[in-house]
Amino acid sequence: MIEKKTGSNYNAVDLGKMENLKSHKIEEPVKARGKVFLNELLELTSMEVSVNSFPPHTSMPFHHKHGENEELYIFISGKGQFQVDDETFDIEEGSVVKVAPAGSRIFRNNSDESLYYVCVQAKENSLNKSGVSDGEILEKEIQWPS
Amino acid sequence: MIEKKTGSNYNAVDLGKMENLKSHKIEEPVKARGKVFLNELLELTSMEVSVNSFPPHTSMPFHHKHGENEELYIFISGKGQFQVDDETFDIEEGSVVKVAPAGSRIFRNNSDESLYYVCVQAKENSLNKSGVSDGEILEKEIQWPS
Repeated sequence: MIEKKTGSNYNAVDLGKMENLKSHKIEEPVKARGKVFLNELLELTSMEVSVNSFPPHTSMPFHHKHGENEELYIFISGKGQFQVDDETFDIEEGSVVKVAPAGSRIFRNNSDESLYYVCVQAKENSLNKSGVSDGEILEKEIQWPS
Repeated sequence: MIEKKTGSNYNAVDLGKMENLKSHKIEEPVKARGKVFLNELLELTSMEVSVNSFPPHTSMPFHHKHGENEELYIFISGKGQFQVDDETFDIEEGSVVKVAPAGSRIFRNNSDESLYYVCVQAKENSLNKSGVSDGEILEKEIQWPS
């Protein structure tokens, strides 16, 4: 069980070091290790997010597409290959891939190290205001504990 | 200039190693180093995302809140502290913080190492179907180049 910190305007969890992500597992809709979904855990209402460790020399076991959600893969460590429809390209630390709902997607880790990535999905065309225009800087004194 | 790979259903970029993120800079709305926004780069329509390197012993220079977007911070390496409204808590590799639009938020890196994080924002209550229910597994042969 992952312990949650919570306040009126936030929820937070500590998932631990990336190398320990492999100890997490899910049972539904398929059994998988090394995957933590954040939607229910943090009560997200705008996106589903998973933080993932993917083992060496392993391919996702299926292609998949989406109905209405755009998907973004952010690879934070490791190396592999990504395929969308009939195109294959290399990915590594710092690679970021956006896939439209209809795209058939699959990836693999073809290296000797774990592949770590964050996957975010949110409803296509749902963003009204991007970061800068939706944000408001507050005139509030900055106070950090000493 | 970051080179983009693109196809009918995807856009992808390689941002490079996390330790090189500090070479990226933005001019608007404030000058900042170590930050790459992905919205325009990848033509995202559901979320704004930034990938960030934040230097040692540095605080964000202001508190901010949002109008309609929920925000998620995923800390992928380093240590620091996060403040929402009047609560302060420690964050480190593997910490994930969701902040509701109205929350006054600020964080700092109070360590000797860079703090790396991904920040995602999307419109509160915009998600109709979460990952599993929106996804569809495809009956398509898996073929990887040898």
